[in-house]
Amino acid sequence: MTKGASDRTFPELTTAVIEAMAAATDPRLREIMTVLVRNLHAVVRETRLTEQEWSAAIEFLTATGQICTRTRQEFILLSDTLGVSMLVDAINHEDGDAVTPSTVFGPFYAGVQRELAAGASILLRPEQGASTLVSGKIVDETGDAIEGALIEVWQTAPCGLYDVQDADQPEGHLRASFRSAPDGSYSFKTVLPVSYPIPDDGPVGRMLAALGRHPNRPAHIHFMISAPGYRRLVTHIFVAGDDYLQSDAVFGVKPDLVVHPQPDGDGLAIHYDFHLARA
Amino acid sequence: MTKGASDRTFPELTTAVIEAMAAATDPRLREIMTVLVRNLHAVVRETRLTEQEWSAAIEFLTATGQICTRTRQEFILLSDTLGVSMLVDAINHEDGDAVTPSTVFGPFYAGVQRELAAGASILLRPEQGASTLVSGKIVDETGDAIEGALIEVWQTAPCGLYDVQDADQPEGHLRASFRSAPDGSYSFKTVLPVSYPIPDDGPVGRMLAALGRHPNRPAHIHFMISAPGYRRLVTHIFVAGDDYLQSDAVFGVKPDLVVHPQPDGDGLAIHYDFHLARA
Repeated sequence: MTKGASDRTFPELTTAVIEAMAAATDPRLREIMTVLVRNLHAVVRETRLTEQEWSAAIEFLTATGQICTRTRQEFILLSDTLGVSMLVDAINHEDGDAVTPSTVFGPFYAGVQRELAAGASILLRPEQGASTLVSGKIVDETGDAIEGALIEVWQTAPCGLYDVQDADQPEGHLRASFRSAPDGSYSFKTVLPVSYPIPDDGPVGRMLAALGRHPNRPAHIHFMISAPGYRRLVTHIFVAGDDYLQSDAVFGVKPDLVVHPQPDGDGLAIHYDFHLARA
Repeated sequence: MTKGASDRTFPELTTAVIEAMAAATDPRLREIMTVLVRNLHAVVRETRLTEQEWSAAIEFLTATGQICTRTRQEFILLSDTLGVSMLVDAINHEDGDAVTPSTVFGPFYAGVQRELAAGASILLRPEQGASTLVSGKIVDETGDAIEGALIEVWQTAPCGLYDVQDADQPEGHLRASFRSAPDGSYSFKTVLPVSYPIPDDGPVGRMLAALGRHPNRPAHIHFMISAPGYRRLVTHIFVAGDDYLQSDAVFGVKPDLVVHPQPDGDGLAIHYDFHLARA
C-alpha cells in the first residue's frame, strides 16, 4: 500500500487524537506527541496491523518493561538495537569534523569511579589478554591542550562481561577516572577489550533472533570526558579488525573512532586524541 | 521542519537498521519492523528529540511496563488513549453499513461468565440507578434472525467501577451471558451505566493530565456476540446525552452505537438490534 493511499484511511481518528491535545500547557510536549501519534497511526495504516499483531506488540512492550531492574534497562537496549539512540545522539551532536564524534552511552556506566594517577592500570586482578597502554591528549577544536579534564573509562573483561554484570569480578574492575595533565595528556594501562553480546535473554534478544540479527558489539573502551567550558563527550574507541565493526548490534561505530593498536614491548599501545567542543 | 528536510538527516542510520533485518525469516515481521523503524526515526528527526526528552520517554515506557499486573494493562490504556486501538479496530472491521460497528474491547472483560435466562437481571446486589430493560435481536446483514448466539455483556456499577476493580462488589456483578432465542431476540435487566474515568493513577493518567485531557469514558454497556458462521462482534452501546460522548478518552464512540433509553414503567428501556457479518 502506498503512503498516500494509507493516509486516507480513517484520518478522522488521527485528527481527533491530535485535537484532544489542544489544551496541553507545554507546547513542546504537544509537538512531540502530535508527531508521535501521526507516525504511530501511520505504522498501523501502512502495515494494516491485525488485532493479533497488536496483541503481540502489547505483550512485547509489557515484557520489556517488566524485565527492567536497577541494573538492567531493556527499553534502552530496544532503543539502541533499533538505531533510535544513535539517531538521537547524531541529531544532538552535529559538531563538525574538528570535534571527536560521540556514540551511545550504553547501560554499563556505574557512577562515580576511583580516580587514578596517569599511567596506572585499571585492572583490579590479572587478566588473560593483551596488555595495552592507552594514551593521548584532551584538546579543544583547535588542538590546544585542556588541562584537568575528567576522563572516565570503562570496558569489558576478556570474558565479555562488565564488572556490574559479573559477580566474579571485583567491583570497579576495568573502570577508573583520570585527569589530563597541563599539556592535555592522559594515559592508563588495561587489557585489550573484546567483542561481546548485549544481554540477549529477554524480549530484545528474542526480537533480534526473530529478525535474523546477532546481538554482538565490536570491542571498545568507553570514554566520558568532562571539562569546564566544554561539552561533555560520551564516546568509545573501537579496535580495528574486529568481526563486528560493520554490524554493531547498536549501530554505534563511526570510522573516526576506530583505532589500530601498535606493538609496544610485550604488549600493545593505542594512541588517541580527544577533541572537545566548547560549551 | 518540513518532512522532506528531516528525512535527509542521517538517512544512513535508518538504512543500516532496515538492512540489518534482511535475514529475518518471517517476511511479515520484517515488513512491520521496517515500517516501525522508519516512523520511529521520523519522530526523532521531525521533533529533533533531545537527550533529556529521550530519557523521559525511556522512563515513561519503563514505568508503563512496571505498573502492569494480571488485572491492570497500562500499555493497552496507552494504546487506547492514543487512538491506536480504535485505528486497529477500524482497519480490521471495514464491514459496511449492514453490520453493527465494533469498538474497543477494553481491559475489563473477566473471562467466561455465568449464563442467564432471557429477561434475567445481571445484578448480584441492589444498586441505586435507573432500572433498565435492554432488549433487541441478533440478526445477520439481511435482518434474518440468528438463533443461539452467545451474548456476553459487562458494565460499570453506578459507583463508576467494574466488579474486577472494586473489592466491595460481588464477583460477577453486572456481567453475564445470554443466548438468543429462535427469533434472534435477547433481553436482560440492569441499571443504567454511568460515565467513569479509566485508571488514571499511573503513567497514562499523568500523560493525559500533561496533555490537558480528561480520563473519562461516556456511559456504555459492553457486548461481545459470537455465533457459528459469523464474525465475533466486540462493541458497546452508549447512552445518549452523556457529557463525554464527544470526548471519550479512548475515542471509542461511533454514532450508530448511541442509544436513547425510553421511559418504561418505573424505569427505562433500551432497544438495540445487533447485525453480525458472515465469517
